[in-house]
Amino acid sequence: MENTLDTLFNPRSIAIVGATDKKEKVGYAIFKNIIEGGYKGKVYPVNRRIDSLEGYRVYHSITEIPDEIDLAIISIPIQYVPQLFDQLGEKGVKAAVVISAGGRETGEDGKKIEEEILRKARMYGIRFLGPNCLGFANTIIDLNANFGLDKPLKGKTAFISQSGALFTAIMDWANQEQIGFSYAVSIGNMADIDFGDLIDYLGGKDEVETILIYMESLPEASKFASSARRVIRNKPVIVAKAGRSETGQKAAVSHTGAIAGKDFLYSALFKRTGVVRSENVLQLFDLTEAFSKQPVPSGNRFVVVTNAGGPGVMAADQFDRWGIKPATLSRSTMEKLSSFLPPVWSHNNPVDIIGDASPERYRKTLEVLFDAGEVDGIICILTPQYMTRPYETAQVFHQVSTGKDKPFYAVLMGGEKLKEARYFLETHGVPVFDTPEEAVDTAFLTYQYTYRKALVEEDSLKVERGKNYQAVKEIIDRKLEDREYLLTEYDTKRILSLYGIPVNSTRNATTEDEAVRFAREIGYPVVLKINSPDILHKSDAGCVITGISDESSLRQAYNRIISNARKYKKDARIYGVIVEEQVEGDFELVIGSSYDKIFRQYMMFGMGGTMVEFFKDVSFDFPPLSGVYAHQMVESTKIYRLLKNGFRDKQPVEIDKLVDILIDVSRLVVDFPQVRELDINPLLVRGSQIYAVDGRIRLESVDQKNTILV
Amino acid sequence: MENTLDTLFNPRSIAIVGATDKKEKVGYAIFKNIIEGGYKGKVYPVNRRIDSLEGYRVYHSITEIPDEIDLAIISIPIQYVPQLFDQLGEKGVKAAVVISAGGRETGEDGKKIEEEILRKARMYGIRFLGPNCLGFANTIIDLNANFGLDKPLKGKTAFISQSGALFTAIMDWANQEQIGFSYAVSIGNMADIDFGDLIDYLGGKDEVETILIYMESLPEASKFASSARRVIRNKPVIVAKAGRSETGQKAAVSHTGAIAGKDFLYSALFKRTGVVRSENVLQLFDLTEAFSKQPVPSGNRFVVVTNAGGPGVMAADQFDRWGIKPATLSRSTMEKLSSFLPPVWSHNNPVDIIGDASPERYRKTLEVLFDAGEVDGIICILTPQYMTRPYETAQVFHQVSTGKDKPFYAVLMGGEKLKEARYFLETHGVPVFDTPEEAVDTAFLTYQYTYRKALVEEDSLKVERGKNYQAVKEIIDRKLEDREYLLTEYDTKRILSLYGIPVNSTRNATTEDEAVRFAREIGYPVVLKINSPDILHKSDAGCVITGISDESSLRQAYNRIISNARKYKKDARIYGVIVEEQVEGDFELVIGSSYDKIFRQYMMFGMGGTMVEFFKDVSFDFPPLSGVYAHQMVESTKIYRLLKNGFRDKQPVEIDKLVDILIDVSRLVVDFPQVRELDINPLLVRGSQIYAVDGRIRLESVDQKNTILV
Repeated sequence: MENTLDTLFNPRSIAIVGATDKKEKVGYAIFKNIIEGGYKGKVYPVNRRIDSLEGYRVYHSITEIPDEIDLAIISIPIQYVPQLFDQLGEKGVKAAVVISAGGRETGEDGKKIEEEILRKARMYGIRFLGPNCLGFANTIIDLNANFGLDKPLKGKTAFISQSGALFTAIMDWANQEQIGFSYAVSIGNMADIDFGDLIDYLGGKDEVETILIYMESLPEASKFASSARRVIRNKPVIVAKAGRSETGQKAAVSHTGAIAGKDFLYSALFKRTGVVRSENVLQLFDLTEAFSKQPVPSGNRFVVVTNAGGPGVMAADQFDRWGIKPATLSRSTMEKLSSFLPPVWSHNNPVDIIGDASPERYRKTLEVLFDAGEVDGIICILTPQYMTRPYETAQVFHQVSTGKDKPFYAVLMGGEKLKEARYFLETHGVPVFDTPEEAVDTAFLTYQYTYRKALVEEDSLKVERGKNYQAVKEIIDRKLEDREYLLTEYDTKRILSLYGIPVNSTRNATTEDEAVRFAREIGYPVVLKINSPDILHKSDAGCVITGISDESSLRQAYNRIISNARKYKKDARIYGVIVEEQVEGDFELVIGSSYDKIFRQYMMFGMGGTMVEFFKDVSFDFPPLSGVYAHQMVESTKIYRLLKNGFRDKQPVEIDKLVDILIDVSRLVVDFPQVRELDINPLLVRGSQIYAVDGRIRLESVDQKNTILV
Repeated sequence: MENTLDTLFNPRSIAIVGATDKKEKVGYAIFKNIIEGGYKGKVYPVNRRIDSLEGYRVYHSITEIPDEIDLAIISIPIQYVPQLFDQLGEKGVKAAVVISAGGRETGEDGKKIEEEILRKARMYGIRFLGPNCLGFANTIIDLNANFGLDKPLKGKTAFISQSGALFTAIMDWANQEQIGFSYAVSIGNMADIDFGDLIDYLGGKDEVETILIYMESLPEASKFASSARRVIRNKPVIVAKAGRSETGQKAAVSHTGAIAGKDFLYSALFKRTGVVRSENVLQLFDLTEAFSKQPVPSGNRFVVVTNAGGPGVMAADQFDRWGIKPATLSRSTMEKLSSFLPPVWSHNNPVDIIGDASPERYRKTLEVLFDAGEVDGIICILTPQYMTRPYETAQVFHQVSTGKDKPFYAVLMGGEKLKEARYFLETHGVPVFDTPEEAVDTAFLTYQYTYRKALVEEDSLKVERGKNYQAVKEIIDRKLEDREYLLTEYDTKRILSLYGIPVNSTRNATTEDEAVRFAREIGYPVVLKINSPDILHKSDAGCVITGISDESSLRQAYNRIISNARKYKKDARIYGVIVEEQVEGDFELVIGSSYDKIFRQYMMFGMGGTMVEFFKDVSFDFPPLSGVYAHQMVESTKIYRLLKNGFRDKQPVEIDKLVDILIDVSRLVVDFPQVRELDINPLLVRGSQIYAVDGRIRLESVDQKNTILV
């Protein structure tokens, strides 16, 4: 597979099927782009209707070409592509780019043609890009095999775009900004080659130091996940994906005709696979500049140096938006700085070295900070004040930062007066930003790469079956046989309990006397609830009674629940009345698992209770969870701070226990892909006491594993 | 006052005190900038040590000048400035710019010099800018009276900067970007002339269409408030203020040496006065472009037109970040569009008119949308695709949008291929942005101006004394006499109740029997609490007992509370035991009032309970509140949606009643500036039943009004 992609991107010979002399046609543009781009391999235009094109002989069919063909670039109406693939097969062509539009983006018929093309491709062992793509560029061999792009500049970045329009727009902008690439790929509909393939392939290339992706939707998350997790160990993968909001997602779906999957799951996937998510397309390039020109920060303790207070404040504000604090300077660092800075310097981070800062003052300050153990990276701001010597200061920035193991980002705020300085830095390996905010975003996101990569490296995806797998399997099989897909609280808790998740004592009584006996064993006060697969909103039906503190109230409650159940639904199947230990907690949490067409099984953790959707304080990840990511899930919520430290009369919670419960739930859903939905709400927590107090499971008949990670 | 500022900004003659031939000195730079800037008035350099400068006669003292002097620009060491003011007085100079640094930014001594200068200025009727400023520019009369600025371009915008460094940086950047100004002012330490003066003055100028401010802190909010409220009725005032975060604020305080005031109160003030807050300094200029080139939108129903799906999605996402939905297109608009758009157009807003969109297709689409009653403004995106004709499309943008009463913002995503189109639009009155996000931010913030201006116009600041003013005055006077500054729940509720704020029945019993009688009158169940000014954390002291449902439990509870109180604090003054109606609610809210040195009394409304600080779902404003702003306070919280619509078993709340309570509380704190802090938490709410269930007041001895608005 690797080899075929190599043939595609590094062909010795190319046939352009649909090359034409009609200048407004795509087939002409591609031909022109390739021959004018300086490609050294052989180029064979193919068109049944003409004999020559710009001095090249035109072949009427690909099979006529008296040479081996590595790559076919196809720009003919899509309905002819399947039969063309027969010719490719005959000719022994192993790689193709299908430019032609008219695939799945146009509806069912187009989708069928794509499937037909794919079937043929598989038959002949052909790998192909597209359909509905603009082609690609490989600047290493001067191959500009696309339409719409002026020749890109050379560089060490690979860019993959799912949108043709943005492919052109971004590459056009990059040309203007003098940003270079080794590879640029318009990925199209991904009928065959997809993100996972390209990440794997480009990830293995020395000429690629960073992979940038503009993504609209994933057709399939599993392959992306495994290739990203592998590649990010060596180089950053940065994705800009639109469609965060509901309106945005709706627009995205209507635009791509694809199932988009929930946006928050994209974010969860990127986190889990070590991918950095860029907020917008321009930020992609800020990050590229940072990654390609500077080391990655080993931590998030950044320092800001500035010759103007205001921009320092802006930087501090922006760190706060990301939820991190700038580095705290050690006493020794402060003393070193005070030894040569004017007495009015800020004595704090941001390090304001005052408006009359000379290049020398910048130099000394930066030297101290590069040496400071408490600093992981430096953002250095320059504004053009009356005493400022911008060009010399820029030279100092370059000299001091070269060869250091900490990243250095310059912010030059101004225009004409800073032009020379800016140009000097841009051409000397120092990233330059126009605003403190951009520099801080970049610093934070490069740090995020460091952080996420460490998590991926630390993570282990070992999956062990639950100890009581067999017992749960029997329950679930039985329920599925009975077509009872929505499990009652009682059955849900039995299953949870078998997988080690603590539940409050919960017994099913089928007679009043049994209820009395259970209550005595459990200890008063107790809660009674109906146990019926036909009554799921138990409270609404008047079938939950709490605070029962003695036998006579219990008997009364028992009968009231039975009679309310009958009233609520005459023919409801009643399995009994549940007698539960009444527990109190400091926090109501929720643990859930659900299913998405693209992302398969996923998990949720956060603030629970009836207002879950109002608080929206939840985090998401995918099973199986190791301790690393289960902990991440807990840590990523806002309530975490309160859980960890307690709050007023609420005790601190034993976090490790929560983490273990998440791991157990993840094990349960991996062992049983039939568990389509699972809800534990509330998970009642006080200190080290944790109980699943209510829950439900929805089953579906599925056999195979259903997670994107294993 | 107005006249003196006119003398300052439009002088017929200027004395430059401290003008020098030493080229590295500020005094030289200012002189040079003025004479090279093309100023037509008379210029008199003053310096004791030299006789001539660049062909000008230099006077040894300002009093020697044989001419009237309108403006003195002063660049001598600050310690000599007070005595210089005596000479200005003698000479009859009425306006000055004090460039000299060394004022309050250096500490107490500097502050004293400033006060001395101000005293002299008042004595001679002089108004002055600074100290510690860079000067100003008035491009209308070609007066570049500052150091550090290349001559600014002419324009219709006024810019005021509190930071000298950002004054230079932003003006330098504006020159590069070809952005012009009528006035640019470095405001310095504002010892005399402050934001309020300049907003008033510049607001009255025909040559000023928009006022931009870079603000670090307000010395005094009241004057700003009244001038902004007046000026925004005619022209937008836009403020960029750094220091949102805690770290940022700390940095700001250490940088300016000023008391900064709480940042959320700046936001509240801007909202209240119709000022638009820009997120960052560059956004100031996006907004300027929009305000100066396009009409303001009359509503927030924007439509996005695009020839590429991705950027449309980005725009939709960005609208979502601001919490607004793009316009919903009417059926008639949809039909009109469908009549000429290709069948695969998005059939929705964003209106994706597909990658091969011709200039004509853009024209027809835009014509329909400009005509559509459901659309308040248009964002139009162009990407350079293979069939795109950027320059002709840009011409269409200009033709179609000219003279319309709805704003039109263009987004051109790309580089080289769009250069001509971009230049055409920039020079033909159409704002152009590089990204959909920028355009959406601009659209939203221009709409925000419309919205806030309408609120200011609708608002009335009528202040009526509370009906029971006298009764409350007696309580408060008495408490202050007794030096009892922290009022108990009981006294707080008495006061609240006198101002019309509903409280649950709350009686103070001094004997057990009295408690029994009160409970019978109130009706069981009741709550008992201690009433003691020495026990404020009543629960912690075991002095709150709830759910008392009969006489015997009540008697027990009464004695338990008394004994717990004694145990908690032996010598606590005990005023009695409060007997309260036990009320239930669906929502716990909070209403508070507090005090800030800059912003004086302010009010808070939001989610209450013990987790107020965790949820942070609160809004702020300043008393007095009219219905307009009281309603705004309620609407601005997230919980509002639930209050308004109810949620599960929680009933919808009567919002108007909440609004009335806020108005009553605001009346109370305006009537009594002695109320330094007031907390009603929880305000328990269910449907139309609202009760202040617990509360406290902290008093301070103050006499005068203490709000920035009246």
